[in-house]
Amino acid sequence: MKTSVAIAGYGNLGKAVLANLKHFPDLELVGIISRRPKSIELDGDDEYPVYDYADAKLVKADVVIMCGGSALDLPVQSPEMAKYFNIVDSFDTHAKISEHFKNVDASAKASGKVAAISIGWDPGLFSLMRVLFGSVLPSGKDYTFWGKGVSQGHSDAIRKIDGVKKAIQYTIPKEDAIKYVESGMNPQLSVKQKHLRECFVVAEEKDKARIEKEIVTMPNYFAPYETVVHFISDEEFLAKHTALPHGGRVIRSGETDRIKQFAEFKIKLDSNPHFTASVLMAYARAVARLNREGKSGALTALDIPFSYLSDRTAEDLMQNLI
Amino acid sequence: MKTSVAIAGYGNLGKAVLANLKHFPDLELVGIISRRPKSIELDGDDEYPVYDYADAKLVKADVVIMCGGSALDLPVQSPEMAKYFNIVDSFDTHAKISEHFKNVDASAKASGKVAAISIGWDPGLFSLMRVLFGSVLPSGKDYTFWGKGVSQGHSDAIRKIDGVKKAIQYTIPKEDAIKYVESGMNPQLSVKQKHLRECFVVAEEKDKARIEKEIVTMPNYFAPYETVVHFISDEEFLAKHTALPHGGRVIRSGETDRIKQFAEFKIKLDSNPHFTASVLMAYARAVARLNREGKSGALTALDIPFSYLSDRTAEDLMQNLI
Repeated sequence: MKTSVAIAGYGNLGKAVLANLKHFPDLELVGIISRRPKSIELDGDDEYPVYDYADAKLVKADVVIMCGGSALDLPVQSPEMAKYFNIVDSFDTHAKISEHFKNVDASAKASGKVAAISIGWDPGLFSLMRVLFGSVLPSGKDYTFWGKGVSQGHSDAIRKIDGVKKAIQYTIPKEDAIKYVESGMNPQLSVKQKHLRECFVVAEEKDKARIEKEIVTMPNYFAPYETVVHFISDEEFLAKHTALPHGGRVIRSGETDRIKQFAEFKIKLDSNPHFTASVLMAYARAVARLNREGKSGALTALDIPFSYLSDRTAEDLMQNLI
Repeated sequence: MKTSVAIAGYGNLGKAVLANLKHFPDLELVGIISRRPKSIELDGDDEYPVYDYADAKLVKADVVIMCGGSALDLPVQSPEMAKYFNIVDSFDTHAKISEHFKNVDASAKASGKVAAISIGWDPGLFSLMRVLFGSVLPSGKDYTFWGKGVSQGHSDAIRKIDGVKKAIQYTIPKEDAIKYVESGMNPQLSVKQKHLRECFVVAEEKDKARIEKEIVTMPNYFAPYETVVHFISDEEFLAKHTALPHGGRVIRSGETDRIKQFAEFKIKLDSNPHFTASVLMAYARAVARLNREGKSGALTALDIPFSYLSDRTAEDLMQNLI
């Protein structure tokens, strides 16, 4: 039996879900929900029915994969769509996850649907690892490193500076810091010691000095870090800086009765939105099954057993993967 | 509220559970079950009540942590103890996990208890990673590397050879093979290409040539591998080869719509039994909670959400670790 899914939001993430359907033969796409349905039709990506949000509830989907942004879209769209559908979203504003969970939970409990929120890699797989590591090695210290990869939030912050034509920011973990952590010495590391921020910017010559100063002194985003700014030509930008790689690692440096124990989870992604899409799709499968079993309400990755992520039977998993 | 636990089997693993209690303040040890209760009393490790298996059901424990061996102890003891208690075991004979699951499940369903089997790192955490990786990156290839670490089974196999006084075998992953896998080229690797087996043996001079030949030609254990045998003195053995380090990694080299994606889980353990004990203790907490919620029967790590492994509240996890 196939699980029918719809995509809500047709940006990088929504397009990546579509591109990865071939890897999830048990998922069947039945529609795309968009604020600009006309533009999807014009792009030629209209082999699936396209709906406006006003008509979203007409979609016959077991699960809606929410592909909007965390700042403006998901806080409104996830509670709304959970009134009608099982959903999975990648809400990633860490400080507001509890609030988002409560809002989505109220809708999903009322509709009898399941909503998995904050699914992706951080939050998501990295959250799973932090909880696993803290549980099996309770005495120890966690380290999360991000990158090398593109931070959309930091890139956007640079793009808002007057005179910036194009900009991208790479978060780069410092190899020295990783080695220090791997040594098992449990160092106390500042944000500055852990990551470098490297920016590539296209701008007019006359604006460069001012733009660089505005970047490196920007509170929260850049001021606490070592930041390097490169001004490059439009051609170089287009040739080298349009992909969205990312990655990172969660390290637990712990001890059991004074004996050193070390665990690490690491990902290296040539496309961040593609990997996030793929994680959302595995969890879409899980929420459909949980709802068929009678479950309702909001969940996070911590609440969902891994057997639900797979399309393989329990017997097959036991024979071949345990 | 504390969870009361008992240890069944007082070898390396059982002793490691005892040593790690200080890291699990929500677990309270109420007894040790042993085939040789007298020897525990003689060792002075009798600050907790010690029981023979015949009296095991008198123990007032929420969960019994099964610390016997997979070859002879657990196939009998786990189904037996699951008649009276929630249990967690580290049964690790991969080919017999389905059979063990069925036997334990029958007991646990009949008694209304929960039994988590094959908990540890492989099977256990590595199984979790293989299922997670296969689910979120369905197109790709898995690689499991073990070591550097002591293989108890291979060490035992050497010890059975006539004339061997002491022996230990280290499984060593080949760095070349790991690099090859990390390159993303998805190589097909033979067992010989992945691991080296290094043996340290104490024996009389006259037996060395024969023993070395018997080791390197031993079917299944050594014949398919590159095996190195070192003969050392008793003193060197005692000085350098009495610890039980281990470790390993699970790597997924995959792609999403032809874009490379890479995930890895790695552990480096100064004591294998201590880490396994610590994992069993986190799952002991989980089975107690699952049983309080009305669940019964056998489970594997794949069936248990990570939130159950932690002693922190859902709200605390959401605020601090997601």
